[in-house]
Amino acid sequence: MRLTGKSLLILFAVGAGFGLIGDHAAVHSGATRYLDTGGVPFILDSPIFFPVMVGLATASIGELRLHLAPPRPGDFWEGLAAAASVLGIYLLTSILTDESTSTATAFIACLAALVLVRFGDGRPAMICGAIAAVLGPVVEMIEHSAGIFEYTDNVDDLFGVGPWLVPLYFAFGVVAARLGELLARGPSGRRASAA
Amino acid sequence: MRLTGKSLLILFAVGAGFGLIGDHAAVHSGATRYLDTGGVPFILDSPIFFPVMVGLATASIGELRLHLAPPRPGDFWEGLAAAASVLGIYLLTSILTDESTSTATAFIACLAALVLVRFGDGRPAMICGAIAAVLGPVVEMIEHSAGIFEYTDNVDDLFGVGPWLVPLYFAFGVVAARLGELLARGPSGRRASAA
Amino acid sequence: MRLTGKSLLILFAVGAGFGLIGDHAAVHSGATRYLDTGGVPFILDSPIFFPVMVGLATASIGELRLHLAPPRPGDFWEGLAAAASVLGIYLLTSILTDESTSTATAFIACLAALVLVRFGDGRPAMICGAIAAVLGPVVEMIEHSAGIFEYTDNVDDLFGVGPWLVPLYFAFGVVAARLGELLARGPSGRRASAA
Repeated sequence: MRLTGKSLLILFAVGAGFGLIGDHAAVHSGATRYLDTGGVPFILDSPIFFPVMVGLATASIGELRLHLAPPRPGDFWEGLAAAASVLGIYLLTSILTDESTSTATAFIACLAALVLVRFGDGRPAMICGAIAAVLGPVVEMIEHSAGIFEYTDNVDDLFGVGPWLVPLYFAFGVVAARLGELLARGPSGRRASAA
Repeated sequence: MRLTGKSLLILFAVGAGFGLIGDHAAVHSGATRYLDTGGVPFILDSPIFFPVMVGLATASIGELRLHLAPPRPGDFWEGLAAAASVLGIYLLTSILTDESTSTATAFIACLAALVLVRFGDGRPAMICGAIAAVLGPVVEMIEHSAGIFEYTDNVDDLFGVGPWLVPLYFAFGVVAARLGELLARGPSGRRASAA
Repeated sequence: MRLTGKSLLILFAVGAGFGLIGDHAAVHSGATRYLDTGGVPFILDSPIFFPVMVGLATASIGELRLHLAPPRPGDFWEGLAAAASVLGIYLLTSILTDESTSTATAFIACLAALVLVRFGDGRPAMICGAIAAVLGPVVEMIEHSAGIFEYTDNVDDLFGVGPWLVPLYFAFGVVAARLGELLARGPSGRRASAA
């Protein structure tokens, strides 16, 4: 492992916390609705496995990034900006629930491109983004097929889930990778002048 | 005083002008409604004391910032970007009136974090932002209690005012501080290469 | 000509493609409706002359920019960010169709200012933006007068077209100019470290 246990825990906590905030917005906007969650406990508006999965995904992609290329330097503010960017996009998908889905998806894709340019470093960031952009929606499709939740009519065009999940998860992957870089130890990985 | 009379006047004018634009949007979107304003004259959709208060707050925070730490260099474009950012966020609070308030508040908080990272310099910016984030909403709560205006049902959860006022005023404080820096005189404070 | 045929073609294709995406959003949101388009073929939701005109405008402004001042360096990512920014603003005008038009216009103007600061270089960028901000809406007003299309009631305040067309086209001009710079040949114009 390239990340320490503490760094992995930070990534897990950030991902889980943001998952809870974003899912709260999705449920409140009516974008998604939980159906049969097997009786597991809920935190806020989410069954407990949801924040756990987002947290694990965040930590996994952060770790993966460090196996792809050396981390670039950066500071706390760089991480804050990256995290705020992707949480903002996540919330925006709920805010745009009632808009034309193709328009919302194209708009989220524009923001994901800005996240890639601002926080990514080309190929390594794109690999992390692409993996998240495939696995994230596929896992949600499986959960949807299993009857765990449903997206509202207006945003279920992609095999039952929101098409904007693709650019949203892409941005998530890019940001998780950047956070992984910022938490990496070592001479080049920690202190620097960025942001 | 660290700022000249002319610089204070510029800050006052920018704050007052933006207050008028933002309040026009708030009234038109139905986010806020003026009730008993004591018969004072209105400018656009605002009782005259509103732009005056925003202008005074802008000049005060700009001056305050210069007592906290030396100003960083920056140019006209830096100031334009800072001002456009906070006016955009202000307008967005009106645009989001009909959305879930918790979602809107979290979204505005993400944008405020981006403003802090882009235009702030850590502690001094956070102090200015925090003072604005406390005093601004408190003043509005007092005005609300006095029957001067009311927020619409959907956005009056914070003692009668919009919860997103907190991150909005925080971003305002950070930007007012940055404008104060840019208007500071002296060898290091004026001409530079930034933006 | 300062741009090669290939570069002009790239600008034309980017402009035409983005025009199709943005117009699709405008038609779907109900912001605009085509009336009498003279029986020409449609691509997606646009009569064929629309993407052609946007493409020609993009190539023209890109070429024009290089006659105003030497190009600054920049890379692919810079161009991606510039293009994503203006497409995002374009889509946002559709998303904001049902909002107060003055609020939406002021908001789009804030974003256009951010585009100017981030991607522009002062006077040359402002000239390109201003030309687009005048010619674009005027051409649309003429098309509207000719009965080719109409904007919906809420957004036809500027002689039949949307007032936010002015800042939208301004941002378009700034971005087309930046893309022209990035596609310019020569020692200083091509490879660099930007973005």
